Amino acid sequence: MNILVTNDDGINSQGIYALVAALKEVANVIVMAPLGEQSAVGHALTVSLPLRVTEFQKDGDFFGYAVSGTPADCVKLALRTFLAERSHPKPDLVISGINHGRNTAVNVIYSGTVSAATEATVLDVPAFAISLTSYHRKADFSVAANFAKKFAPYVIKSGLPKGTLLNVNIPACQENELEGISFTRQGKSYWDDMFERRLDPQERPYYWLKGHYILEDKDEDIDDIAIRENRISISPIHYDLTNYKFLEEMRENWKVNF
Amino acid sequence: MNILVTNDDGINSQGIYALVAALKEVANVIVMAPLGEQSAVGHALTVSLPLRVTEFQKDGDFFGYAVSGTPADCVKLALRTFLAERSHPKPDLVISGINHGRNTAVNVIYSGTVSAATEATVLDVPAFAISLTSYHRKADFSVAANFAKKFAPYVIKSGLPKGTLLNVNIPACQENELEGISFTRQGKSYWDDMFERRLDPQERPYYWLKGHYILEDKDEDIDDIAIRENRISISPIHYDLTNYKFLEEMRENWKVNF
Repeated sequence: MNILVTNDDGINSQGIYALVAALKEVANVIVMAPLGEQSAVGHALTVSLPLRVTEFQKDGDFFGYAVSGTPADCVKLALRTFLAERSHPKPDLVISGINHGRNTAVNVIYSGTVSAATEATVLDVPAFAISLTSYHRKADFSVAANFAKKFAPYVIKSGLPKGTLLNVNIPACQENELEGISFTRQGKSYWDDMFERRLDPQERPYYWLKGHYILEDKDEDIDDIAIRENRISISPIHYDLTNYKFLEEMRENWKVNF
Repeated sequence: MNILVTNDDGINSQGIYALVAALKEVANVIVMAPLGEQSAVGHALTVSLPLRVTEFQKDGDFFGYAVSGTPADCVKLALRTFLAERSHPKPDLVISGINHGRNTAVNVIYSGTVSAATEATVLDVPAFAISLTSYHRKADFSVAANFAKKFAPYVIKSGLPKGTLLNVNIPACQENELEGISFTRQGKSYWDDMFERRLDPQERPYYWLKGHYILEDKDEDIDDIAIRENRISISPIHYDLTNYKFLEEMRENWKVNF
């Protein structure tokens, strides 16, 4: 089993170390991840600059390729050019994570973690994103890493439809506190955010984004609700963004003849 | 009618000038757009740096606010904080564009133009993205600008479902060559891309992304096919990425009990 691992927190992060350590027990793992932190980077690709790759070693037992780009860059570069160039095998699966913080509801569209898994799907390699719903500085990634290790072969064996990936969120609890696993849909929770205006020492204004998350949903089958109830949340998502229902409505009712 | 305009090509671009000039004939227009080019930036938000806003004037008749951030930043900053701070009215509509190049099929997920309109939708303001499917350096934006001017009041009057925006693509032809308007779905065309490895003067490698677009689709109701046949393409898209069909299948068939 060959697995490509990436993330958006950057190659030097606890989440990717924990994930790779667990996966190495069951798979041949290649790491290609951003050199720096790339959170909320969305599905960005670097098109106006070239990419650099450097070899990255940590504590003797972690090795990966660090890329001067985004999570989607890492996956595209690995799958389209780099792995073959270095005679690495084509991966059976791409895993992006473990992200430090949830990727549920509207967060999915901002998420570099999810975008890396999406890019693998665009390139026809099965993929999942995995996030730990904790913002604690010393978060414990072991439950998430352990789940990824068991889930990876299951996903490869089961297969995913073309264009579909899985978005996995792990509650921040101990293994014995888990209340099971749920197949969920993307919720409608959102950020009540705004920008705080400040003045720099030269009295020129600048704006900092800040906000808090509004848990809007109630239904049992929503990603954020599963997490709140200590259930692992697995949402199948795709990148066909068409709203088919409204498309039918437009075709019937919209008269645009300018 | 109050309209907020943004884009991803940057505030100093022909597409936004043409759009604003046309819209000013029928609406009160506020411009808040990235200072620099932000193509393929996806739905990125700037969270680790503050944003700066500068006033930007061009040729006496174009005025806008330039932001040191992404298209999604521009929309969030405008709608959440900046417009109210400057006593500008809340917009009835957000228009993102006119992008220089198509935003169809898989391009939608990389598009800063679409992401800006998506961000407006997240914040409950109706929005559309508009792109001209030409990469010609001296592209003629007049057909697209003229369409936007007529389409804007129609969208406001018709309304859009919560969470849904419109992705408009305009063929690169003259007005009298247009073959009508189609309500379309997102196609499956894609980039056959790879990275070209080069050596810098110090003999260190770097990688440039390059590729060409593969027109995979055939059906009449696909965005790229409409464009090929000189029809204006209007796709309703949403950011609920759940694959509901596969969710049902997972619930029936996947047994994940670790």
